Amino acid sequence: MPISRRGLMLVLSSPSGAGKTTISRKLLEWDDDLSISISVTTRPRRPGEVNGRDYIFVDATDFQLRVNRGELLEQAKVFGHYYGTPRAPVEAALADGKDVLFDIDWQGTQQLEANAPRDLVSVFILPPSTRELERRLRARAQDPEDVVAARMAKAADEISHYPEYQYIVLNENVERSVASVRAILEAERLKRERQIGLPDFVKALRQGGE
Amino acid sequence: MPISRRGLMLVLSSPSGAGKTTISRKLLEWDDDLSISISVTTRPRRPGEVNGRDYIFVDATDFQLRVNRGELLEQAKVFGHYYGTPRAPVEAALADGKDVLFDIDWQGTQQLEANAPRDLVSVFILPPSTRELERRLRARAQDPEDVVAARMAKAADEISHYPEYQYIVLNENVERSVASVRAILEAERLKRERQIGLPDFVKALRQGGE
Repeated sequence: MPISRRGLMLVLSSPSGAGKTTISRKLLEWDDDLSISISVTTRPRRPGEVNGRDYIFVDATDFQLRVNRGELLEQAKVFGHYYGTPRAPVEAALADGKDVLFDIDWQGTQQLEANAPRDLVSVFILPPSTRELERRLRARAQDPEDVVAARMAKAADEISHYPEYQYIVLNENVERSVASVRAILEAERLKRERQIGLPDFVKALRQGGE
Repeated sequence: MPISRRGLMLVLSSPSGAGKTTISRKLLEWDDDLSISISVTTRPRRPGEVNGRDYIFVDATDFQLRVNRGELLEQAKVFGHYYGTPRAPVEAALADGKDVLFDIDWQGTQQLEANAPRDLVSVFILPPSTRELERRLRARAQDPEDVVAARMAKAADEISHYPEYQYIVLNENVERSVASVRAILEAERLKRERQIGLPDFVKALRQGGE
């Protein structure tokens, strides 16, 4: 009478520049049961980005068609571009006992929370200081100054949504933060309601059959 | 604007013989922020047990006085003996950001849940099989046969209460189970509602003052 489990949706949100992308990459390297949800977006591809790996790049018409067909689990508009999460691969993973990582903002998180509250585990990553946040935002040399300014304003807005998240990780040290998110993932997998087959296992245990 | 945290109450319950005592000992060795709650009991001291370390051994009158004074956070009667948790040391630890481990059964857990639901983290440890459970119960050579039989019956009863717990750990391997409970402890420490000072920290962060 084996015990299996339903997968979970791990949301990492943070202001841009708080270290979320690095943490996500390290989590994915470490854990075979975790894969990242690839978003659909109308934003132009940046140098180095690969279609189908970083995003599924589509035009506005294609995006709207997916919305109309109910194929997106959440969607958001950021800096004039649309982003959305394809529903089918997420549902397949969860049913298969695999976890899905979401690198989305508070708008997307609110929609996932509304659509799948029991599967959702939400983590907000805070930068250790404003100075560190600004330093990291400026380190992306390819972005023009007005984009940096807009991102700082968005960061302040994003941070104001931390109370909507279940866990808070202060990213003072990347390795320490990765360990923290790993612990959250390991713990959430042990939640009673995610474990499938417990009633039958326990029944057999009490009857001496296991 | 430092972030601190309120301590939590980590309850480990399981049928006797599922490996809980070993797991508790290893957790305590590893973690300086975790101490075990020492219960008051009217049960006779066993060979090797030390008063004030394993239990606070008291007579029935003393126990009743503590109950009357409201000094116990929970109490239970098991095999004709009373067990209870002194309230004062637990409250002092939580306020100081330290965690307290409880090795109690479902009766005690229900009372803690009623008294302090936000501070409580409850973990139920399941034995991997009935055969393994019985083997471990018989391994305590000092116990007479009728005590073993009574403990098997109590084990079946205890197991039926697993749905009242937040986390379930199947103890197939002690080291793996210790790692699991550690992950639960680490994750629960990162829950937003246990972190003190977040609003001020975030306010300073948004204003550029941190």
